[in-house]
Amino acid sequence: MMQKIDHIGIAVKDLQQAIAEYETILDTLCYKIETVDSEKVKTAFLKIGESKIELLEAVNQEGAIADFVNKKGEGIHHIAYEVTDIQAEINRFRGQGFRILNEGAKKGADNKLVCFIHPKDCNGVLTELVQSLD
Amino acid sequence: MMQKIDHIGIAVKDLQQAIAEYETILDTLCYKIETVDSEKVKTAFLKIGESKIELLEAVNQEGAIADFVNKKGEGIHHIAYEVTDIQAEINRFRGQGFRILNEGAKKGADNKLVCFIHPKDCNGVLTELVQSLD
Repeated sequence: MMQKIDHIGIAVKDLQQAIAEYETILDTLCYKIETVDSEKVKTAFLKIGESKIELLEAVNQEGAIADFVNKKGEGIHHIAYEVTDIQAEINRFRGQGFRILNEGAKKGADNKLVCFIHPKDCNGVLTELVQSLD
Repeated sequence: MMQKIDHIGIAVKDLQQAIAEYETILDTLCYKIETVDSEKVKTAFLKIGESKIELLEAVNQEGAIADFVNKKGEGIHHIAYEVTDIQAEINRFRGQGFRILNEGAKKGADNKLVCFIHPKDCNGVLTELVQSLD
């Protein structure tokens, strides 16, 4: 089942500057900063209602976030939806002809299984599915 | 107070195609289609958790959505946050040096007061505040 917006990922150039900006915008403090080595990003999270804003800074000039910022500048990079059963959702999306970007669910940060759906199948929106393993 | 993500606005070329796509993605039916003449857009809404996805199609070649799709293609156009008191938030944002795009809150669709914050002050994200009048 598709449950809620888990988070919105925003690609930024300078994580510290962006954290200060979004602490003001959302009127709340960043509660977690985490480096995801496999994705070559440093991330920061802020809560808003049942969802989160994830700020993403590239740690070097490799990886998807560096590419995105170099080509398009800062801005929204993806939407992630929380699901109850990621494998059931992958099967459902594949059955409808959607392209899943990885082979299947992979272990992401924060004890979660994640996968991405091709943005061309979602009207230009890179779409992530997230299942919590907690 | 900043309460939750009210909706994510996605600019699309063909509203009917996008509605079918997002009914599949979110596994729920579109519950409202509404044309906002002042903004020159046709909108469709789908629920996901406490938030909504708003699909936006330009009704002609004028207006912000036509510009966006012509320049950047389909994709996420804005994030809207629900607030309890939009005037208090406008004052708070102005006090922090954020640029509010309209003079102040204006009447939007769906019996709401809305305003937009300059994307350059939000790391490239066009940010809307929404207060429900219901």
